[in-house]
Amino acid sequence: MHFASDNSGPAHPKVMQALMEANDGYRMPYGADAEMAAVRDRIREVFEAPEAAVYLVATGSACNALILATLCQPWQAVFCSEVAHIEEDECGAPEFFTGGAKLALVDAPDAMMTPEALRARIDRTDQGVVHGVQRGPVSLTTVTERGTVYSLDQLRGLAGVAKDYDLPVHLDGARFANALVTANHSPADMTWRAGIDAVSLGGTKNGLLGVEAAVFFDPAHAWEFELRRKRSGHLFSKHRYLSAQMLAYLTDDLWLETARAANAACARLVAGLRALDHVELRHPPQANMIYCAFPRGLHRKAKEAGAQFYSLGALDGDDDEMLGARLVCDWSASDENTDRFLKILGA
Amino acid sequence: MHFASDNSGPAHPKVMQALMEANDGYRMPYGADAEMAAVRDRIREVFEAPEAAVYLVATGSACNALILATLCQPWQAVFCSEVAHIEEDECGAPEFFTGGAKLALVDAPDAMMTPEALRARIDRTDQGVVHGVQRGPVSLTTVTERGTVYSLDQLRGLAGVAKDYDLPVHLDGARFANALVTANHSPADMTWRAGIDAVSLGGTKNGLLGVEAAVFFDPAHAWEFELRRKRSGHLFSKHRYLSAQMLAYLTDDLWLETARAANAACARLVAGLRALDHVELRHPPQANMIYCAFPRGLHRKAKEAGAQFYSLGALDGDDDEMLGARLVCDWSASDENTDRFLKILGA
Amino acid sequence: MHFASDNSGPAHPKVMQALMEANDGYRMPYGADAEMAAVRDRIREVFEAPEAAVYLVATGSACNALILATLCQPWQAVFCSEVAHIEEDECGAPEFFTGGAKLALVDAPDAMMTPEALRARIDRTDQGVVHGVQRGPVSLTTVTERGTVYSLDQLRGLAGVAKDYDLPVHLDGARFANALVTANHSPADMTWRAGIDAVSLGGTKNGLLGVEAAVFFDPAHAWEFELRRKRSGHLFSKHRYLSAQMLAYLTDDLWLETARAANAACARLVAGLRALDHVELRHPPQANMIYCAFPRGLHRKAKEAGAQFYSLGALDGDDDEMLGARLVCDWSASDENTDRFLKILGA
Amino acid sequence: MHFASDNSGPAHPKVMQALMEANDGYRMPYGADAEMAAVRDRIREVFEAPEAAVYLVATGSACNALILATLCQPWQAVFCSEVAHIEEDECGAPEFFTGGAKLALVDAPDAMMTPEALRARIDRTDQGVVHGVQRGPVSLTTVTERGTVYSLDQLRGLAGVAKDYDLPVHLDGARFANALVTANHSPADMTWRAGIDAVSLGGTKNGLLGVEAAVFFDPAHAWEFELRRKRSGHLFSKHRYLSAQMLAYLTDDLWLETARAANAACARLVAGLRALDHVELRHPPQANMIYCAFPRGLHRKAKEAGAQFYSLGALDGDDDEMLGARLVCDWSASDENTDRFLKILGA
Repeated sequence: MHFASDNSGPAHPKVMQALMEANDGYRMPYGADAEMAAVRDRIREVFEAPEAAVYLVATGSACNALILATLCQPWQAVFCSEVAHIEEDECGAPEFFTGGAKLALVDAPDAMMTPEALRARIDRTDQGVVHGVQRGPVSLTTVTERGTVYSLDQLRGLAGVAKDYDLPVHLDGARFANALVTANHSPADMTWRAGIDAVSLGGTKNGLLGVEAAVFFDPAHAWEFELRRKRSGHLFSKHRYLSAQMLAYLTDDLWLETARAANAACARLVAGLRALDHVELRHPPQANMIYCAFPRGLHRKAKEAGAQFYSLGALDGDDDEMLGARLVCDWSASDENTDRFLKILGA
Repeated sequence: MHFASDNSGPAHPKVMQALMEANDGYRMPYGADAEMAAVRDRIREVFEAPEAAVYLVATGSACNALILATLCQPWQAVFCSEVAHIEEDECGAPEFFTGGAKLALVDAPDAMMTPEALRARIDRTDQGVVHGVQRGPVSLTTVTERGTVYSLDQLRGLAGVAKDYDLPVHLDGARFANALVTANHSPADMTWRAGIDAVSLGGTKNGLLGVEAAVFFDPAHAWEFELRRKRSGHLFSKHRYLSAQMLAYLTDDLWLETARAANAACARLVAGLRALDHVELRHPPQANMIYCAFPRGLHRKAKEAGAQFYSLGALDGDDDEMLGARLVCDWSASDENTDRFLKILGA
Repeated sequence: MHFASDNSGPAHPKVMQALMEANDGYRMPYGADAEMAAVRDRIREVFEAPEAAVYLVATGSACNALILATLCQPWQAVFCSEVAHIEEDECGAPEFFTGGAKLALVDAPDAMMTPEALRARIDRTDQGVVHGVQRGPVSLTTVTERGTVYSLDQLRGLAGVAKDYDLPVHLDGARFANALVTANHSPADMTWRAGIDAVSLGGTKNGLLGVEAAVFFDPAHAWEFELRRKRSGHLFSKHRYLSAQMLAYLTDDLWLETARAANAACARLVAGLRALDHVELRHPPQANMIYCAFPRGLHRKAKEAGAQFYSLGALDGDDDEMLGARLVCDWSASDENTDRFLKILGA
Repeated sequence: MHFASDNSGPAHPKVMQALMEANDGYRMPYGADAEMAAVRDRIREVFEAPEAAVYLVATGSACNALILATLCQPWQAVFCSEVAHIEEDECGAPEFFTGGAKLALVDAPDAMMTPEALRARIDRTDQGVVHGVQRGPVSLTTVTERGTVYSLDQLRGLAGVAKDYDLPVHLDGARFANALVTANHSPADMTWRAGIDAVSLGGTKNGLLGVEAAVFFDPAHAWEFELRRKRSGHLFSKHRYLSAQMLAYLTDDLWLETARAANAACARLVAGLRALDHVELRHPPQANMIYCAFPRGLHRKAKEAGAQFYSLGALDGDDDEMLGARLVCDWSASDENTDRFLKILGA
């Protein structure tokens, strides 16, 4: 009963198989491997973006921070949600990589910015006045940090606001495959056609060992990105082992298959939770992550039974008090475990 | 005939096997995996350092730069050889991670600093005078960037100079196993007992897919290192896959076995080259890397025959002119390829 | 009728006189001038802090950022008001000097943080968890950015919260003299006795050409500060000209005399504004700065008559609509100008 | 007998007078003062550069570092002499302001780079290879750090090398007026016509209290420079006091008058030293700074008699041993003092 995070589960067997196959003989290092050429072609095909610049790194924080550093000057602000991963979960990586840019936080109910809130925050930043930081990129996340998914119209609306101010748009797609499965639009529609300039395309949370792709639809910044990646220690010498993972991920749409499995497991869990009077959903769960609340006593009981998940508060206290929980399903989640967990909560 | 680099070869089968085995079920993320606990214990045992703080990252540049940033203030100088990897091959990673420290270069024949040259360079840095940068860590490399290996006395001598000035000492051990095999001393003797405070313990060039260990013999800086690692995007969520590689590496001394294989292959190559009048060795090859020179025409001939290695200059030009070459043997090098290559050079 | 800012007025004649007198013959450079020794003694006397480390720089942004960089690690957060000068008016100087620290904003009605809001914001910062930035210094401002002044109890309360978490406290005292005159407590009571660790002691806005003093009550960080000051280009070679200004400022309490004059001019203006039905005060004006609102038409009329002040919005629009204004009095403000201005607003 | 530095002497009376006159009434802050408009016009006239972007800061280190940060990317190298002020005397300011660029040192006999040495150092920097830092600006200094002055041909030669590689050129002109007087060419010939892109135009060492001008002949970088200046705390609110100094400096060629006085005093001192058998000149003194050597005993004797200068080594030791000295003349040096000093050395 593992609902702690989609970064705790195993890698997909096909990915492990690809790693094994990539381990024959010699390869050119530092991204000159044949697998990387295939990854580049495949990502350009998947995103219908023949000009895109494509790079691989091993962590999501590196991918986000390197893209933002490339799109942002040190004296600019990055506009993002008040609960954005780049704000709350990267120990200041964007500030470090950009050379001290500021994150300008935008109100975001259910972790989704509204065009009005974004516009208001941008307007508050005096462009052309030397005393304050200047306007920089807008960074969106989908699947959001609360499990919601931007609709195509929402993405277009937010990117449209950025374009009104001539600001670049970054998409943190650590769970982009899960968002795609929910939104049911093409990768191109959900990104560059909607006005997004660069994407952190996640693989680690969706069946890889640890690979994310940085995709720039305009290759103008490609060389700068390569230098920033090397300078920050994120260029792998034995790069083939990153390439092989990403190539397997995108072959025969494995990435969508694993995302569908995770979202389906989550939907099953949501349906079960909805049926329980003493469980409240805190945000609409639209992909593979649930924010909910149930009595503290049940937190303890479930954990004693072996369930793993984040309790959003202390476990000791009044049994009947409602306590928040975060539940995440990964591609390998089993119906059996889900039903066992629901049975415990239902008891 | 692959002599381009020890980062171009395959990972060792036992390492791949360990990766497979680590891929069962769920693990705690971010270094809380059971494999990491075992790695920590094993490294402390290998280095006879029960207090050591041990962390894993995926690249050597990250390992070096994170250790240096932890040992160095932004207004200090890092003393290193004029051909140090941190100076020439990391695109300014030390400057980036430290917040703008300066690398103070020390003359180093055969890439080995002398105590006199180090002392002179430190003396040139006015400590306590606000106008210049202050004295910071000393960074040594062994196997050096020219294929030589510091003797135990040399390490003690250089670390002793640093201690005279109360400066911390970092060892870039990207090829530490190869150096150990040559020097034939214990890891403890070659590091903390010689006066070294922190080591970048390499695995990538010696049979892993991509893992290096940062080892601090004094754990005082442990928490700062963890924050710097996270902040720079080098903390892996699915950390088990780093741990499993390093654990396999240190089990049954696989790391020494692969290093011995690489050094033996190199020795065979050296013996063959010495027998050829038209080949000059440029530095004493003491581990698995050779700097030599032979006529340009032979460079072309060897490459046409499929040999891979770095020519230290342009391939087009006078056939008879001596042209430098770098030849590196990895753990998987075969006698057959070595002999084929020697035959071509001998023809 | 100059109410734009207290950085637009002239320097005090006694300060100019001191500059002239300091211009005789030679002096040791870089702060070794005799005037600086006298400044150090005088500030230690004024603050009853015989151990204090004292340094001079030429701008308030440099003083704040250098102190914060000395008190804060790159991976920490600085807790400050949502309208703090360091957040809104320094183009990211704190982020630049600290190497990418994050400013964590605290709700602050009338620009004054409450202990509850500060505590809540600190609690939201997970100390000891590697994913987020860590807790760093608390930065207060008095006179605040909205013209209010913390009472001694308020300062003690906020510093007390910081001490509960073992966090250092910085005071942005760009208008510290004006605050002292209002609060009517000793410099020691308003700073280190209340729990403040370092002060930016402003002079520029209160009669100097351009000098601020960085005062650390604990000299532990002195040498680091000196290196940071030099490294950021803020150490003056002909330092005597900074020293002479600050010495004149603190001689015969000139600093309090000029602050009293500014506050008195402001009180006269406030009294006049209160008498006008169509003028609203937006924050309680407690020193030498007023935030108020009056009909847009009067903004235009006053400016046409030569009044200088900041209108907090566009001048073109409905005449009758209330429009915000910031009015600041400096030490040289004249009753005549104040009364002329009030007459215009009253018409 | 003050030969310690040209930053120890007084400001010129005309400059003090201008400060007094600028202290009447109110001025727009932050560089919007009328004096600054006049400074901008005057510098454009002096340099025959009607498009030039002109900014004032208070220190030479800030001027150099801000210009370099504007011309250099964090992953690039700044090419400069091994004894450049930016390398030896600014505590790493260029590294701090650039975000971690590397200073690549060029051999420079008499502190003057040769085109051959510069070209060789640039060639050693692999452009387009991601492993090393990339080629960035070339930074020259004249008057050099050893008192020599580049001829017009030398400046053209070095700038020409930079242009061959398409690299921008910065001139550290802390003593530019002294160099102009020696070289006897126009400011335009010695800068942009010779291929220099930006100049740090010094005033502090030549009769001002503390002002340097950053001059960009191509205004493309103007706004970036303004943001960097503000962000680093170098934008003065009461800017008029910087403007007034620089305006007086450039009025009626006061800057050349003071430089001529300093150079003449130095020439008198050089003539006297040449007449003394036991004094050796270490570098050709071509402006207002002398590097020489004379017996240690005379160092002590001169200092006991009140002479101030830097001895380049310890004062205690063998009296007869030759010990280096640095002697600098400022605009206010008197023949009487010079002759007194020569008499002591001659005795």
